[in-house]
Amino acid sequence: MSNPLTEALSRIVGADDGVYRGALERHATLTKPPGSLGRLEALSARLAAVQGTVKPTITNKAVVVFVADHGVTAAGVSAYPKGVTAGMVRNFLAGGAAINALARTAGAELLVVDVGVDANLGSHPGLWSRKIARGTRNMLDGPAMTRTETEAACGVGLEAAQTLAAQGGTLLAGGEMGIGNTTPAAALTAWFTGCAARDVVGRGTGVDDEGLARKIRVVEQALATHQGVADPLDALARLGGLEIAALSGFFIGAAATRTPVVLDGFIATAAALVAVAVEPAVKDYLFASHLSREPGHRVQLEHLGLEPLFDFDLRLGEGTGAVLAFGILEGAAASLSEMATFTEAALQGSLR
Amino acid sequence: MSNPLTEALSRIVGADDGVYRGALERHATLTKPPGSLGRLEALSARLAAVQGTVKPTITNKAVVVFVADHGVTAAGVSAYPKGVTAGMVRNFLAGGAAINALARTAGAELLVVDVGVDANLGSHPGLWSRKIARGTRNMLDGPAMTRTETEAACGVGLEAAQTLAAQGGTLLAGGEMGIGNTTPAAALTAWFTGCAARDVVGRGTGVDDEGLARKIRVVEQALATHQGVADPLDALARLGGLEIAALSGFFIGAAATRTPVVLDGFIATAAALVAVAVEPAVKDYLFASHLSREPGHRVQLEHLGLEPLFDFDLRLGEGTGAVLAFGILEGAAASLSEMATFTEAALQGSLR
Repeated sequence: MSNPLTEALSRIVGADDGVYRGALERHATLTKPPGSLGRLEALSARLAAVQGTVKPTITNKAVVVFVADHGVTAAGVSAYPKGVTAGMVRNFLAGGAAINALARTAGAELLVVDVGVDANLGSHPGLWSRKIARGTRNMLDGPAMTRTETEAACGVGLEAAQTLAAQGGTLLAGGEMGIGNTTPAAALTAWFTGCAARDVVGRGTGVDDEGLARKIRVVEQALATHQGVADPLDALARLGGLEIAALSGFFIGAAATRTPVVLDGFIATAAALVAVAVEPAVKDYLFASHLSREPGHRVQLEHLGLEPLFDFDLRLGEGTGAVLAFGILEGAAASLSEMATFTEAALQGSLR
Repeated sequence: MSNPLTEALSRIVGADDGVYRGALERHATLTKPPGSLGRLEALSARLAAVQGTVKPTITNKAVVVFVADHGVTAAGVSAYPKGVTAGMVRNFLAGGAAINALARTAGAELLVVDVGVDANLGSHPGLWSRKIARGTRNMLDGPAMTRTETEAACGVGLEAAQTLAAQGGTLLAGGEMGIGNTTPAAALTAWFTGCAARDVVGRGTGVDDEGLARKIRVVEQALATHQGVADPLDALARLGGLEIAALSGFFIGAAATRTPVVLDGFIATAAALVAVAVEPAVKDYLFASHLSREPGHRVQLEHLGLEPLFDFDLRLGEGTGAVLAFGILEGAAASLSEMATFTEAALQGSLR
């Protein structure tokens, strides 16, 4: 494992249980019927426990979209050709994608990180060029990535989280784009949860019934090919993708800097499975947003013990669902940090 | 019916079905797999149909909290004494309530409107003093309000919506506060939906089992007392409250000015039942936010044919749940108005 990753992992501690309890106690003193903010109360207490204060504050928000190509597209697993990945990066940089619209309305910074697009993308102020390889190899023919590539991609994600946290980021989200990437995400999900391929493979960008059956066979074949997986990072190398590895590093980086980070959909949550398998305390820093239409997403969230905030049948990725949850998390934090207590408001505090 | 209300009702037309279809067609051309934004796509098309353009824009947002007292508190239906209503108004004006924290994080203006608090509240820049009466009468002894009071309260809500729309408000939410107001809301819900009291009465701010049984009996008795209800506004007068009447007028005003308006919880949605009974086209302008813990809220939303966006077990009111949905509605609108088409992005548009 590379040194920055080892160093970050060594710094991760779980969220503060005492602060969590203190935050819930504070909620009971605020000017509202006890418990009347429902799930927001526990959500705000989790944010408090992450930040180590019963008055959590969310100021700068950012979403990072990690982008890479996938050798497994050669097996016909996507409704779109591989070239769309590079085209979508240009669309992100021109401001025309869904994540651009949603990040802007959420008041969040958007950073695009190329860790493995099979094209020359040039330079752009909104792009980090950190290409590890021009896409992965086809996991049906052998490991998708070498261990070195995997750790380098993790390192890029780690660097992104650490950089944003150092710049004052108090709420992060990890998104992704990469034609073909629901297939490695499904393979990783099957490996980490023990579920069958058919329970975690979905239609991705929109394959038909035949395409779905082909995807299931590809995942089954990949799992059979890579039976000798040694550890979580080996699973990531053999079955994963460069943007998925970067997302795993990103989640580790968020935990190492005690920054709450919002999960998006199926691919981002596959990366979270890896990160939590490497270091279970990462889980304390992860906040679920939506429940994706991809059937494996529910399996992943249940494995992580996380409950989504909403279900809009999204299946786009890019961090879109995560950014939609930003306002809810900000509201939860503000309820805890900004509301007056009954005593402060000179209202009869004993009224129940 | 008062003249401004009659005039507003005469101006209401349904949302534009052609624009709705055009918006969904536009979504299919945007740079994402068709349908991949799930429920956001239909949501954005509803906003488009309300604004009459396939590129809806949300700029200024506002939440109005209508406040009043209730004579039915004499029947012991609330966990809190009536005096808390005035105390909470002072808390709103001092910035210490949940709606203050949530409106601020959502970037929404907050306006507090006194239509019937049983206290002298003085003047404050954030307060509209439009007191119609010092609370309602106990609906167990006769009508809660006269027809004149009811129409005057509706007129205040109408004025609030029209004023905010004239100031450029493009997304509104109606909230409320008034100790005892889940009881009139339950009575109205039973009357408008035909459900039994026991199916629509909940614990409100937190009554115990005995209090719940008492609330059910009070609502049953009120419905028996007022069997001769003539029309929706008569039901509102006999069973409602001043802030509920104001909210009904507010929803009518939003529809008359073609402004989308977000429902909050059980009390606000009771007011929506009244508004839609008076003019069915009002429904096109209503957007559901959360599903409340109050059991009658689901009954109301089903009656209106609206699906909530999320369920956080909220039971606070004040507009809190509605304001939490603002970011999601803004994101939906922005996805439709700001994303590039495949043609604009020079991506292969025929790729499916």
